[in-house]
Amino acid sequence: MDAAARIEAALRGAMHRRREGAAPPRLTEAIEHAVFPGGARVRPQLCLAVAAACGDDAPALSDAAAAAVELIHCASLAHDDLPCFDGAAVRRGRASVHAAFGEPIALLAGDALIVAAFEALTEGDAGPARSARLGGLVATLARFSGAPFGICAGQAWESEPRVDVSAYHRAKTGALFVAATRMGALAAGAEADRWEAMGARIGEAYQVADDLRDALLTEEELGKPAGQDQALARPSAVAELGVAGAARRLAEILEEAVAAIPDCRGAGALREIVRMQARRLTPSGLAEAAA
Amino acid sequence: MDAAARIEAALRGAMHRRREGAAPPRLTEAIEHAVFPGGARVRPQLCLAVAAACGDDAPALSDAAAAAVELIHCASLAHDDLPCFDGAAVRRGRASVHAAFGEPIALLAGDALIVAAFEALTEGDAGPARSARLGGLVATLARFSGAPFGICAGQAWESEPRVDVSAYHRAKTGALFVAATRMGALAAGAEADRWEAMGARIGEAYQVADDLRDALLTEEELGKPAGQDQALARPSAVAELGVAGAARRLAEILEEAVAAIPDCRGAGALREIVRMQARRLTPSGLAEAAA
Repeated sequence: MDAAARIEAALRGAMHRRREGAAPPRLTEAIEHAVFPGGARVRPQLCLAVAAACGDDAPALSDAAAAAVELIHCASLAHDDLPCFDGAAVRRGRASVHAAFGEPIALLAGDALIVAAFEALTEGDAGPARSARLGGLVATLARFSGAPFGICAGQAWESEPRVDVSAYHRAKTGALFVAATRMGALAAGAEADRWEAMGARIGEAYQVADDLRDALLTEEELGKPAGQDQALARPSAVAELGVAGAARRLAEILEEAVAAIPDCRGAGALREIVRMQARRLTPSGLAEAAA
Repeated sequence: MDAAARIEAALRGAMHRRREGAAPPRLTEAIEHAVFPGGARVRPQLCLAVAAACGDDAPALSDAAAAAVELIHCASLAHDDLPCFDGAAVRRGRASVHAAFGEPIALLAGDALIVAAFEALTEGDAGPARSARLGGLVATLARFSGAPFGICAGQAWESEPRVDVSAYHRAKTGALFVAATRMGALAAGAEADRWEAMGARIGEAYQVADDLRDALLTEEELGKPAGQDQALARPSAVAELGVAGAARRLAEILEEAVAAIPDCRGAGALREIVRMQARRLTPSGLAEAAA
């Protein structure tokens, strides 16, 4: 099974368990709406790519780690789209969770997805590798999801009277990419620290690319409202560096990400994945804008 | 250290880690506001009592389990008080989290507390018992926190067009009591199934007592808005059985809870804890109302 198929299968497994017993039907639907159909599944792809580079000796555990990171990401989208944050009615080209199911169910769907992410780490037949590696996986997922270093903290910086911009970017977007690379290594029984820099750089690239896409693309092209950074006065690489400057910065960071790939068996394949992401991240027409 | 001191120390430890690094200050404050000062800490007390009855051979792990259950409870209060649910401005006799910090930060504080609960299970010096028992603890906390069996599902039933009343009560209040007893057993390396019935009965008693208190007490006595079940048309034992009927039902369930205590070394102490909770749960003047 290729990585994309493994990721969807792991996510479908996690969703299947939400339908056991007397499940509240609208909540169950809302949870699935938040997860399927997905976006590019960038974070779990990265997680599995790092696991593969580290030998992937317990694939059920890498699948669980990949699904867990993606479930946290889906939870954060459901909550970030709520009226008290972005109030976005559109996500991935269709109704956001709260637009489709109302605010109470969207909030609970996000909560249930956070819980499901940790639950996913305990599921599947991972053999004895699980008990040896579960502590590291749970602790890592928690560190980069919650506060002070995770995406909860990242989102919270938008409501603080004074923003630590570097902590904001690290936590808001970078954190889950670092979780993805570290957890890929941990799931394969490898040392996680050497994978941190690569995850951090890809997260940074993703943030700058997102800022550029928000500034340059239309709602139709984005599948969500455009121009939100300026409208909500959020810190943005485009506001700071201008479009051309941000595009140059994106190219630099992606080169740094490639350079941060540790020397390992799968290094070539990983470089290819980063370059592919780079092409995907770059809005068409950006080359001219940056010229 | 007695149980109450162990619980506060474990919770303070979990909060301390929220202050590391460049933490967003208002989020950090809001998280602490949600946890301190606490209520009766009934769930972690129950967790430690069961752990003690099972030998408590890894006390750092029981402390972690007790803190984890309480952090999920605090998260659920922060979210349930939000405007899209109860819209309660008062909790434990002072401002609810959203009343004090605004809706975005209250929502994120709840999210961060869910994450912190799982993180707590990985912290503290629990020795080799942790790797053997962590999977069961994470899976149990997840099962009774999320959906379809946990408190997320319980809260969601209030937004469903048709309510499965029995699933609603089991999930909304019962679930975390079952988590508390099962996790107390698991943390001590004991079999969890035999502790489920006792947790379920105490949860049921707590729900009926809560319904009675909501109907009989004032906002000042409750420390939160009163008469909410009727105002929000929520299913309630008082609506179903009347005050006297609900009070009789409460007494019956508490006897069932005592009867469900498994035969073990600490059974006498546990019976005392249940009876003490029973006295605490019963609103004064209820005896007359029930007569």
